[in-house]
Amino acid sequence: MEFAIGVDLGGTNLRVAAVDDAGRLLEKRVMATDAASRGYPQVLDVLSDAIRLLAQAYRDRGLLRGVGVGVPGILDARTGILRDSPTLPGWRDVPVREALEGRLGTRIILDNDANVAAVGEHWCGAGRGHPDLCILTLGTGIGGAIVFGGQPWRGKSGMAGEIGHLPLRPDEGPPCACGGRGCLQQYASASAVRRMVLEAVMQGRAPSLAPLLEGNPGDIALRTWELATAGDAPACEVFRQVGVALGIALAGLVNVLNLPLYVVGGGVSCAWDLFAPALFAELRRRSFVYAATGDTTRVVRAEMPHDAGLYGAARLAFLNNAG
Amino acid sequence: MEFAIGVDLGGTNLRVAAVDDAGRLLEKRVMATDAASRGYPQVLDVLSDAIRLLAQAYRDRGLLRGVGVGVPGILDARTGILRDSPTLPGWRDVPVREALEGRLGTRIILDNDANVAAVGEHWCGAGRGHPDLCILTLGTGIGGAIVFGGQPWRGKSGMAGEIGHLPLRPDEGPPCACGGRGCLQQYASASAVRRMVLEAVMQGRAPSLAPLLEGNPGDIALRTWELATAGDAPACEVFRQVGVALGIALAGLVNVLNLPLYVVGGGVSCAWDLFAPALFAELRRRSFVYAATGDTTRVVRAEMPHDAGLYGAARLAFLNNAG
Repeated sequence: MEFAIGVDLGGTNLRVAAVDDAGRLLEKRVMATDAASRGYPQVLDVLSDAIRLLAQAYRDRGLLRGVGVGVPGILDARTGILRDSPTLPGWRDVPVREALEGRLGTRIILDNDANVAAVGEHWCGAGRGHPDLCILTLGTGIGGAIVFGGQPWRGKSGMAGEIGHLPLRPDEGPPCACGGRGCLQQYASASAVRRMVLEAVMQGRAPSLAPLLEGNPGDIALRTWELATAGDAPACEVFRQVGVALGIALAGLVNVLNLPLYVVGGGVSCAWDLFAPALFAELRRRSFVYAATGDTTRVVRAEMPHDAGLYGAARLAFLNNAG
Repeated sequence: MEFAIGVDLGGTNLRVAAVDDAGRLLEKRVMATDAASRGYPQVLDVLSDAIRLLAQAYRDRGLLRGVGVGVPGILDARTGILRDSPTLPGWRDVPVREALEGRLGTRIILDNDANVAAVGEHWCGAGRGHPDLCILTLGTGIGGAIVFGGQPWRGKSGMAGEIGHLPLRPDEGPPCACGGRGCLQQYASASAVRRMVLEAVMQGRAPSLAPLLEGNPGDIALRTWELATAGDAPACEVFRQVGVALGIALAGLVNVLNLPLYVVGGGVSCAWDLFAPALFAELRRRSFVYAATGDTTRVVRAEMPHDAGLYGAARLAFLNNAG
């Protein structure tokens, strides 16, 4: 057996997993990131310790082939420096690769979290066997990746796939950390769920949601989903709005890209059953390409909403340390 | 010398040209399409006569290598049937290729007008030497094409590149012929210029524009541009709005695709100097990918705003009748 360590450095959680070369998860460990209260050196200390412990736990069972890490934000792939990150406040020009390699004494494969998730879904999930597809990852923020011919399209500067920053309501929408207004991320991420819950509570429309407002965006989105699943109307309305926003954004993507497969993953995709009806209603109404292509354009739920990034990061470690 | 006939079947004009194999325009003829008042068989009669006359005019000067035709709308590339066309009212399930081949007795190469324009700009215009680029064609409607590795990306069903139908103001925007609301085409095409002029006149904001409202959208856009160039404030405001819309749409495209080059062509691009300031202001403000990539993301005016489709259609005829 050979294995790799895959890391998903998220705005809410640090997730570290050991995955074998057949794509089986051996073990996964999840810790709070606490990026807001800890500086980045401390976060990377915690992460390095977790990687080291997991590698040690499996070293008698097989050969460690490498460590892959997915990071959210604008990554300079050449230098391994995270230029900026809308979901990791204060992480600006952080030399993530150098810092981790220094702490661990081993080579680290680093990539944008959305590309990593796309690689994971492509390896073991809903994208298996599909060379051309688009993936949206609904987490604290929204990541995206476009895969052409089995490879993530990275663009001229490695920054392609920022689907979370498609302008959706550019005039009146909420300001976005990217500098724009009304980006998709403001309507369909865990942070967007928190904002919509907060607004509903503040406007007195949804007293049932008030107790949800403690904790990080991922926890709030999860609890809102639980309440909606139990039939709470204001909570259902939040996810209907998520579906409307995703439908509008997908209409634009389908019209421009005409890909055969769009995969919706990330933590918020747990609410697929709640937001999918509005998503498909908007998509049918707004995309004549979708209407015309019928069954050949598929929008599906990710098969690994939480773990695609872990599998993908491990996969990149295998691919980049072959032989 | 060898030459080909290139045709641009537009919502406003029928344009037919003879282009030689070195990319030189030998002659171009322009007629009104009058799609609204003529049925499609009559329009195709007029077009066939024009193709025949132009081919005859040059038959003593060189070898005719073929005829290429760009059509606006949803084309079934396999059968040559135009499924629907937002800019040719009433053209639904029209067998354009079969009808033209029957009338002319020769093979016709047919493609979507935006793909054809992209091929033209790529052959002889602003896209020369650039394998990866995106082209927006601002005509009666808005066409688009994405070129990866020198080839138009046609998508799963040949319908990719419908950039005119990116949702821009999906809630409050004007209804679009595609079924959506507030698509880019409603803000930056010649038809959009006509709508904005009409609204300004109706609201009493712009008596100076009232005399412009006769004629087809292309003529109205041209006269509005002339008036704006002479300093008319309401006319300038129309093109500022065009620039804002293009900037928002390009922000989305740059964030998602991170291509090195975006080319803006079509008749409305005559007003580049008037709309470019608002375009770049919006793009800088709304796209962190644009802001981060600096000089490596270029947005330029097409070098052949009117004729890219003619060159591209001729080029397709050369490519498809090689040897």
